[in-house]
Order: sequence, then structure tokens, then C-alpha cells
Amino acid sequence: MIITQTVEYALRAMVMLAYNRGEAMTVQEIAKVTRAPAPYLSKLMQGLVRARLVRSRRGQGGGFTLAGAPDEITIWDIVQAVDPIERIEHCPLEIKGHSSLCALHRRLDEAIASVEGAFRKSTLAEMVAESPPAGPLCRESSGDPIVPLGLPKQKGK
Amino acid sequence: MIITQTVEYALRAMVMLAYNRGEAMTVQEIAKVTRAPAPYLSKLMQGLVRARLVRSRRGQGGGFTLAGAPDEITIWDIVQAVDPIERIEHCPLEIKGHSSLCALHRRLDEAIASVEGAFRKSTLAEMVAESPPAGPLCRESSGDPIVPLGLPKQKGK
Repeated sequence: MIITQTVEYALRAMVMLAYNRGEAMTVQEIAKVTRAPAPYLSKLMQGLVRARLVRSRRGQGGGFTLAGAPDEITIWDIVQAVDPIERIEHCPLEIKGHSSLCALHRRLDEAIASVEGAFRKSTLAEMVAESPPAGPLCRESSGDPIVPLGLPKQKGK
Repeated sequence: MIITQTVEYALRAMVMLAYNRGEAMTVQEIAKVTRAPAPYLSKLMQGLVRARLVRSRRGQGGGFTLAGAPDEITIWDIVQAVDPIERIEHCPLEIKGHSSLCALHRRLDEAIASVEGAFRKSTLAEMVAESPPAGPLCRESSGDPIVPLGLPKQKGK
């Protein structure tokens, strides 16, 4: 609930692309470092391309890159591209001629609004800037990033 | 996302019980007024009984009543009984020896925390008190409650 697996994978993938600063990553590379199943991730990436958050390039050296600057892409943009959060604007009981939300649905919509607000304010740039330099995702206590060898930028090391 | 169908039905049922002020309602009566499928609602009610939010009485005049005062039962209690919201306390990548949440998961957990806070502050009593006298759920523009005949308290009218 609240954060679905779909959203979790898409956010991990986008954080990795932001971290990679314009260097293309293949689905296999993203899948390895985000621990997402590659076939499922592949579909998610197509959704992110359709939403114009990600660019895809074929061939040698191809793969996925962010379509915009990390400080202009928010968590909200990503969530809405893959598994949209819907505000409660109409009576969920589907009554025709419904005029207003009851107290219950007003409260629920307020909670959803607070999530929308938080997600709209959070950019990919912040996700990367706030992270320890070793890696943008949750780390082991050793201080090593989770799967550093999956990152193309570290291939040459 | 955020508000699952399970949560939606359970909340509707609890609001109806609060509205009914101690008069028992059968699953069929609750199903009619909340527009929830009776077999599914029946399972949900058992979950609410196990969580000690609802009491069940068998036999003639039996049914479900709230187990506590409406001002002591929150949306949070109900959600946690039927489809719990989980805070992000551990690395979702399931790394052993994980030490801290990354910026991404910290933000996601903050959003979940804001929902938790809103739900903990909202009691059933508020849901009922804030509603128009005619009914506690979303209304038609005519001003009539949605399915008034489903309410036992109106049987004698």
C-alpha cells in the first residue's frame, strides 16, 4: 500500500539514471543495480519513455538516459507515469448527481493531497545530492554501495 | 494506490456502524448501504472483530456493533486492521547489514508518515459529526442519503 512495487522499481531506475549523469544504461544494467526483474523493468522503462521522462537510444553504446535535468523531474512525475495516484474528486460510490464528498472521503483525499505535495516537491537532483557519494540507494553498513559493479561509470576502474 | 478497495470498504462499514450508534447491523445491511460485496465484507468484518474494533453477536437482533467509542477509533486503527500501511524502516533492497535509508527511501517514508499522522488524528466520531444529518457517506445532490432504506434505524419509519 501507498508505495507499490511498480513505483518502487521505477523510482530506483530513475535515481540510477540521474546518478549516471547522461551515460546510457541498458535494461540489464539498471535491473542489476535496482534488483528489479529485467522483463518487468523493460515495460516500466517504455512507460517512462512514453511519458517523456526518459530517452531510449538503440545500438552500440545505446540504452536509457534521462530526458530532462534531474532538478526538473520530480517523484510525482515518475509515479504518475507508471502507477498514477488519483485524488478523490468524485463519490466512490458512483452515485449520479453526487454533489459533495462526505467527511470520510474528504479526509482520505486530504491524506492523498499531502502525499502529492511531498512528491511534487522532491526532485531527482535532491535524491542524488542527499545520498552518500558512494551510491544513491540504500547502503550496506560497510559503506559500500549496494551493487557498484552494475554501474557503467565504474566499469573502467 | 494509497487507498485500497479493502480499506475503502472497511472504512465505509465502520462509518456506518458509528452512525448507527450501537444498533447492530448484519453483513447484508452493511453491504447494501456501503455497496460492498457481502462475502468480501464478511471477511473484512471478521478482521475488524479480531482487531477488537467491532463486536459480533449471533441470533435474532444480532449483527455487528462498534467495540469502542467512535471518538476512540481512528482511520489508522481501521486501516491497520485490514490492510496495514508499513513504514519504510529497512532497506527495501533487503541488503544484510543495511545501515541507513537513502535519500529516496527517506522521502518515501516521510510521505507515508504524513498519511499515518493524518489517519491517526481522524476519528470515526469526526466522520459522523462532520457529515450532513441525512447520511454519513457521499450524497446525491438531492440531499438524500445514498441508500437510506439499508439502515436498520430507519426501518420503523
